[in-house]
Amino acid sequence: MNAEILCVGTEILLGDIINTNAAFISRKIAEYGVGCYMQTVVGDNPERLKAALISALERSDMVIMTGGLGPTYDDLTKETVAEIFGLEMELHQESYEQLVRLFKKFGSKMTPNNMKQAYMPKGAAVLYNDRGTANGVLVEHEGKVVILMPGPPREMTAMFEKQVIPYLEKKSDSVLVSHNLHFFGIGESALENMIKEYMEEHLNPTIAPYAKEGEVMLRVTAKAKSKREAEALILPVIEDIKKVAGEYIYGIDVDNLQNALVLSLKEKGLKAAFAESCTGGLVSKRVTEIPGASEVFGFSACTYSNGMKTKILGVKEETLKAYGAVSSQTAIEMARGVREVAGADIGVSVTGVAGPDGGTEEKPVGLVYIGISTKDGEDFKELKLSRGYGGEREFIRLLASSHALYMALKACKQDSGI
Amino acid sequence: MNAEILCVGTEILLGDIINTNAAFISRKIAEYGVGCYMQTVVGDNPERLKAALISALERSDMVIMTGGLGPTYDDLTKETVAEIFGLEMELHQESYEQLVRLFKKFGSKMTPNNMKQAYMPKGAAVLYNDRGTANGVLVEHEGKVVILMPGPPREMTAMFEKQVIPYLEKKSDSVLVSHNLHFFGIGESALENMIKEYMEEHLNPTIAPYAKEGEVMLRVTAKAKSKREAEALILPVIEDIKKVAGEYIYGIDVDNLQNALVLSLKEKGLKAAFAESCTGGLVSKRVTEIPGASEVFGFSACTYSNGMKTKILGVKEETLKAYGAVSSQTAIEMARGVREVAGADIGVSVTGVAGPDGGTEEKPVGLVYIGISTKDGEDFKELKLSRGYGGEREFIRLLASSHALYMALKACKQDSGI
Repeated sequence: MNAEILCVGTEILLGDIINTNAAFISRKIAEYGVGCYMQTVVGDNPERLKAALISALERSDMVIMTGGLGPTYDDLTKETVAEIFGLEMELHQESYEQLVRLFKKFGSKMTPNNMKQAYMPKGAAVLYNDRGTANGVLVEHEGKVVILMPGPPREMTAMFEKQVIPYLEKKSDSVLVSHNLHFFGIGESALENMIKEYMEEHLNPTIAPYAKEGEVMLRVTAKAKSKREAEALILPVIEDIKKVAGEYIYGIDVDNLQNALVLSLKEKGLKAAFAESCTGGLVSKRVTEIPGASEVFGFSACTYSNGMKTKILGVKEETLKAYGAVSSQTAIEMARGVREVAGADIGVSVTGVAGPDGGTEEKPVGLVYIGISTKDGEDFKELKLSRGYGGEREFIRLLASSHALYMALKACKQDSGI
Repeated sequence: MNAEILCVGTEILLGDIINTNAAFISRKIAEYGVGCYMQTVVGDNPERLKAALISALERSDMVIMTGGLGPTYDDLTKETVAEIFGLEMELHQESYEQLVRLFKKFGSKMTPNNMKQAYMPKGAAVLYNDRGTANGVLVEHEGKVVILMPGPPREMTAMFEKQVIPYLEKKSDSVLVSHNLHFFGIGESALENMIKEYMEEHLNPTIAPYAKEGEVMLRVTAKAKSKREAEALILPVIEDIKKVAGEYIYGIDVDNLQNALVLSLKEKGLKAAFAESCTGGLVSKRVTEIPGASEVFGFSACTYSNGMKTKILGVKEETLKAYGAVSSQTAIEMARGVREVAGADIGVSVTGVAGPDGGTEEKPVGLVYIGISTKDGEDFKELKLSRGYGGEREFIRLLASSHALYMALKACKQDSGI
């Protein structure tokens, strides 16, 4: 089955908002074996909307639309679909009652305009919106399917997950189960080279790589009659991948490094502390993104000046003088210092040159040291993070913070042994 | 003049990447008075690419394309444009030499495939790429314009800024000058209500609002024969807006709160320090995004536990016991403590309930206190940041960090007087 995505909204055409809806829907339908031929954005213009929808229906079996379900005169997607399919618009009683309830709840007055949101193409299935007033619509007509959802991502994604996915599941007469393997310390192409043939041989489960800066994820997805059958297909594939590249896997279905770290610390009953220089708080910001981080994390210090490295973390002035702030020696003393002051099991530090200024021949932009200190010992890692282009301060900081989280995670998994 | 944006890339259709290119280009061309009719994404499929480009050329004067300029057999945008316009492909000597230089620089071997990137449609203007190997192309043919740029945003945006904007400027026979007014502490609709009529009356300069979480920006854009003439048109408009809503303006052309704060601290020769609880390092992460922040910032502490609030910042145990960690009293002691320990002029603290757990009836999720301490006095601000939906931990943290930056900025502008 092939689909197209047609997003309606002048604000997208003006570039005021980025069209995240199209990426979300494309990724989701791909998981159900529905291919996406085209993504189109049109403004709130009835002629162009109609022409785009007619073209899309000529090319594809399914058209998934977002936007244009509001109460104003230029919100026209439902009406356009009804017109093309020759359907009347009629009052949908439950949608009407839902609107009345919502307006009452928020204490606003319902205007005649708002009634528009309760009218639906005759015979269409209504998709309920639990985060706003615009219900969606699913129309099946002469072998074609059109799905209409609201434009705001938080409304659309919830509607899609709860009401469109069950429809796709029913259509496909099978279930899809995915597991995500998260890798760190290996590039996408290196990983692909290791398992290229294996990936190509496997069609069920499929193995798809996704790369983001410094990390790779492999999604293993099986299609089967039942969840149990799908899990049974996936299990040996994960084991095979582990045999080849297991040393780079930092977690399965864990979202990200900070989540893996917080989970692992909780499991082991350990606490971590961080001392940051060039990352400036990014490491602790990432750790505290995770609800419940306070169980395993009590303190981090952003010591941006040499003086504060000495005062708060006890880094020796001689060390700073002899080796500089960006050095393995300083990194280790920072990690030791923050571990001691926080009374933590694992202390991790970051010090480096994030640029654009401050680089020298000896210590260029992108040179970063990660230090680690536990009861069992101390260690450091030297990183050269530059890509050789300008404007990479945030890239260097992000990658440095990932390495710091990864070193903490590795130490935690080894039960704080270095 | 009307344009369409046509992005080529199977990875966009699979939802693996979000199409930020379309938004960037739409916003930029709008500034030059070029309207965007449609945004389309097609995969690396020659028939569908050709059909999409022919349709776009029928509807619009200009088609701006991204992607498909790589060295592999499925990178076909240049060839498709040449075919539609009946142009031959020919070797472009300078592009060839550029490729040879780049391959030498990176020490890789050039394969025959790579030569493909040096072939261009005959007579086309070549757009040089200073961040990658794929040069772009600008073709003018029978009243239509097609612009081809590479897909990776960091290559495309640089090429657009340096080579497409001068072309648009020349085409439009006038210059556009914009200034951005940044507001904090007022919502978009409240600001629009204050200046709605004024905005509607003004067509040159235009006044366009842009909202992001917690902030509003007004872009004032004038079109004129010269930069000087444009500036003269803008000046009185900015003055008028300042009269009505000046108290909410935190900066003009400053990018963001952290940039405004670092600039202002530098100007006054002051230093700031931060003590964070619920924001977990986000405030200092934002400040250290700004190159050169080390001149005005030396230390921040993320004290996530009560113990560390006492140990590092000197918050009294009695205060924590009597009022709790989330209280105005604790916020003020944190701000005072971090100012003293860092030897800074301005100390700012954040303590609150970011959720999803930890809220009580008395202290619900979203309750945040910002504390401030300077040589002239101390103060706090109580915030209730919840939107009433779930999943808003990051929203609360982001807004709380913005308020902290804003309070630091206000204190700095008042020369550290509260």
